[in-house]
Amino acid sequence: MVESALSNIYIYIYIYIYIYIYIYKIWVSSVGRRRVFSNPPPTHEMTENSVVHRGKVLTLGTMNPSVKRVEYAVRGPIVQRAVQLEQELKQGIQKPFTEVIKANIGDCHAMGQQPITFFRQVLALCCYPDLLEDNRFPEDTKTRARRILQACGGGSLGSYSASQGIEIVRQDVARYIEKRDGGIPCNPDNIYLTTGASDGITTMLKLLVSGEGSSRTGVMISIPQYPLYSAALAELSAVQISYYLDEENCWSLAVGELQHALEAARQYCRPRVLCIINPGNPTGQVQSRQCIEDVIKFAAEQNLFLMADEVYQDNVYADGCRFHSFKKVLFEMGSKYSDQVELVSFHSTSKCYMGECGFRAGYMEVVNMDPEVKVQLTKLVSVRLCPPVPGQVLLDLVVNPPLPEEPSYRTFFEERSATLAMLAEKARMTQQILNEVPGITCNPVQGAMYTFPRIQLPPKAIAQEKGQAPDMFYCMKLLEETGICLVPGSGFGQRDGTYHFRMTILPPTDKLKIVLAKIKEFHQSFTEQYS
Amino acid sequence: MVESALSNIYIYIYIYIYIYIYIYKIWVSSVGRRRVFSNPPPTHEMTENSVVHRGKVLTLGTMNPSVKRVEYAVRGPIVQRAVQLEQELKQGIQKPFTEVIKANIGDCHAMGQQPITFFRQVLALCCYPDLLEDNRFPEDTKTRARRILQACGGGSLGSYSASQGIEIVRQDVARYIEKRDGGIPCNPDNIYLTTGASDGITTMLKLLVSGEGSSRTGVMISIPQYPLYSAALAELSAVQISYYLDEENCWSLAVGELQHALEAARQYCRPRVLCIINPGNPTGQVQSRQCIEDVIKFAAEQNLFLMADEVYQDNVYADGCRFHSFKKVLFEMGSKYSDQVELVSFHSTSKCYMGECGFRAGYMEVVNMDPEVKVQLTKLVSVRLCPPVPGQVLLDLVVNPPLPEEPSYRTFFEERSATLAMLAEKARMTQQILNEVPGITCNPVQGAMYTFPRIQLPPKAIAQEKGQAPDMFYCMKLLEETGICLVPGSGFGQRDGTYHFRMTILPPTDKLKIVLAKIKEFHQSFTEQYS
Repeated sequence: MVESALSNIYIYIYIYIYIYIYIYKIWVSSVGRRRVFSNPPPTHEMTENSVVHRGKVLTLGTMNPSVKRVEYAVRGPIVQRAVQLEQELKQGIQKPFTEVIKANIGDCHAMGQQPITFFRQVLALCCYPDLLEDNRFPEDTKTRARRILQACGGGSLGSYSASQGIEIVRQDVARYIEKRDGGIPCNPDNIYLTTGASDGITTMLKLLVSGEGSSRTGVMISIPQYPLYSAALAELSAVQISYYLDEENCWSLAVGELQHALEAARQYCRPRVLCIINPGNPTGQVQSRQCIEDVIKFAAEQNLFLMADEVYQDNVYADGCRFHSFKKVLFEMGSKYSDQVELVSFHSTSKCYMGECGFRAGYMEVVNMDPEVKVQLTKLVSVRLCPPVPGQVLLDLVVNPPLPEEPSYRTFFEERSATLAMLAEKARMTQQILNEVPGITCNPVQGAMYTFPRIQLPPKAIAQEKGQAPDMFYCMKLLEETGICLVPGSGFGQRDGTYHFRMTILPPTDKLKIVLAKIKEFHQSFTEQYS
Repeated sequence: MVESALSNIYIYIYIYIYIYIYIYKIWVSSVGRRRVFSNPPPTHEMTENSVVHRGKVLTLGTMNPSVKRVEYAVRGPIVQRAVQLEQELKQGIQKPFTEVIKANIGDCHAMGQQPITFFRQVLALCCYPDLLEDNRFPEDTKTRARRILQACGGGSLGSYSASQGIEIVRQDVARYIEKRDGGIPCNPDNIYLTTGASDGITTMLKLLVSGEGSSRTGVMISIPQYPLYSAALAELSAVQISYYLDEENCWSLAVGELQHALEAARQYCRPRVLCIINPGNPTGQVQSRQCIEDVIKFAAEQNLFLMADEVYQDNVYADGCRFHSFKKVLFEMGSKYSDQVELVSFHSTSKCYMGECGFRAGYMEVVNMDPEVKVQLTKLVSVRLCPPVPGQVLLDLVVNPPLPEEPSYRTFFEERSATLAMLAEKARMTQQILNEVPGITCNPVQGAMYTFPRIQLPPKAIAQEKGQAPDMFYCMKLLEETGICLVPGSGFGQRDGTYHFRMTILPPTDKLKIVLAKIKEFHQSFTEQYS
């Protein structure tokens, strides 16, 4: 009887353990579910009078959590404060400055850069074709306008274009790429016109991201990066794999660093994409041909889809630097690579010498894309119907500018050269003046439109500001005291313990000199104040 | 002892049951997880020489499965075939027709509608401000252009605008809405300019969708619907809740049907959004004021966020029909509703009398949106920097057209009236001629730009075509035989066993007559052939 009683006790203990485990599992799964569900249970009961006490359907608690995670420093809190300050100035409120200078964003025309006359003449003709009878317009602008209008439904910019873009524009883009790349062929069917490069980049990432948990797509992006990438990845719930550019070596890219980042990432995601920005944003470096070749080899070996953001391809200033397109280098590496490596390259009308940001135009070229996926891409872009047609017109003119024998050539050439020369001059000046400031070090601005100098921040500035990145504190103070709007390095990513800001080189030369002098003065007083 | 042995047996049975349940739960959860992973395991091993045998990174198997699910009939296979046919005609290949007529999409200018002179003059002035010195432009076009350019950074359309849109344009939109709605106030801060209405709709849905499994956001859309909605929901992996419009009652919306659809959907998702298209696309109905009030009450009672697609607000043709905005009706229902119901309304420059699709412009007004969510919305739209600026200019002119005392008024008024009168005439004609065809029945085209007639298909046509919807088979055959491009009803959704097509009323009157005659003839011969 004692034995039997004992055996009963053991059995009861087993039962209790099983019941306990079972209940625990149910509890865990319900808690987990509650955590995953961002949609809280309704907080009210529906009654006849419930309308009066109805809560919001859409709140921070119920909204898409991926959207909540998105950050975009280039238009973040510092820019909102800059806009407020501008309004306060307008209202006559006294400030230590008379003007807010927005050096936060590559917005060329807003900084006084003039549009290219030829582009705007053709655009005016396309908008209002009655002007085709006007003698003040050079004959070549009219020829262009007529050709473009003929390619538009009903001869009007007001018609939808094909989803991939107007056919003749895609043909012109293909010819432009062939010329740029020394004759390497480009198929217009591989060209997709976009609403600015941002649209192309987010569309491609949307196509590339899949999987859940540790099978989620990992996307390699440089640090510092242009925050469109991190924002798009957050929105898509993709995994960001950061690789660091080497600040000591002029923000160059080392394959060892890529390898290191990739290996670590394989533990928690499935890396599939490698994004490169060349010339660099925010870092202004121009990649060497050798480096591009190394990156392509790495992508081939590691089975990565390459995304090359080449929107600054005409913005190269430093002696000895040249822009090499990923496509050209890929094809020069032979068919072992050029037949296989999947690449998409982005370009835009917003940068280079034209700086036409407001038109939101650009293109992407896909290379070696699986034909079935291309069908899916074409379907995906068809949902937004078409890119803005005025932007398509502008892009056509950018890739197909006046020829030397045409009447608009001289003015076009002079305007383009003057803008690029001015940018080169401002790049040199920015680097030189910033490097004179004790506590600021700055790599050469080899290309693009930005400098990303490193700033030494005094210990008290780093220590005292809870909940705000020290460089955000620095930039906010600079804005309040001088009216100069920069973006803190933390918005782009930087190595722990280092601080930077991004500044455009776009303000007119005279104003840029003042901006740089003010930054110098501010940095010195800030350092004294917080040392 | 017998008792004790018996009690032991019971205990063992309990234990077995618990173990069984426990194992079953673990199995279920692992299977569920496997199904969620859309990323198949890698099919190749990396070796030194792997580059040569490297498979594609991006394939149908590895791409985003949500993108794969997207369908968009308005630009689907039938349109691709239409483009092919056009090219074949150009190459001189003989067809039973000499021209492809695209009645598949509301592309007004492509169908010969002329742009409004005032709009295009101001756009030309803004593109090329040297024209401000030209005497051929009326003074009011110059005043407008100067005012808009002053609101652009650096006085250029090439600058980025604020992410929400140019401030004065948003102010003008707000005044337009106030005037339209009989003085009900509109705050410019609630206006977001968009890249066409499609952009606004997808942005709002992106914000609204959250949750997993049975807590996933459910979005109610009408059937038939405009396929942008189903495409956006597929991309966001949201749950589509279909409610049917009543074809027997001129495609009207009954709250009973909403209730029915909502209750069924609560079993498998969390319904949070109700989308309405008024005037209807593809169905052409105009909702009565009473119906809108009923819908608002329903949304209030059921805690639904209202999305009102009102892009056809000027396209109302039928006697006794009027456009009532959801905003106006909401505010006329008193503060019990107007303080609470969350609403977003969309408008566009692509439709109405202007039909400027290519400029990709529009706006949305958010009403009663949680201020914290508005901050998130503003952040989200800032990632795409800004809507195209030429489109913003156009939108400004649409909401702020010439006043009777201004020089451009007369021409503007005449052009607008002529276009709207022509559309009304074509709406009547389409309905009348189609209803004369045996086997085709067609509701009145009260508004918008489409008819969605029901077609009786003969049994052999329904039975024999495997893998292709019978109405797709019908439309494809129509295209091949007549060159007329329509969209099959299956692309919009329809009750099982019924068949339709969508056709725009946009071709010029003479051509529309021919199109309708050809459809009549085709329908008769098709019916004979497959009976």
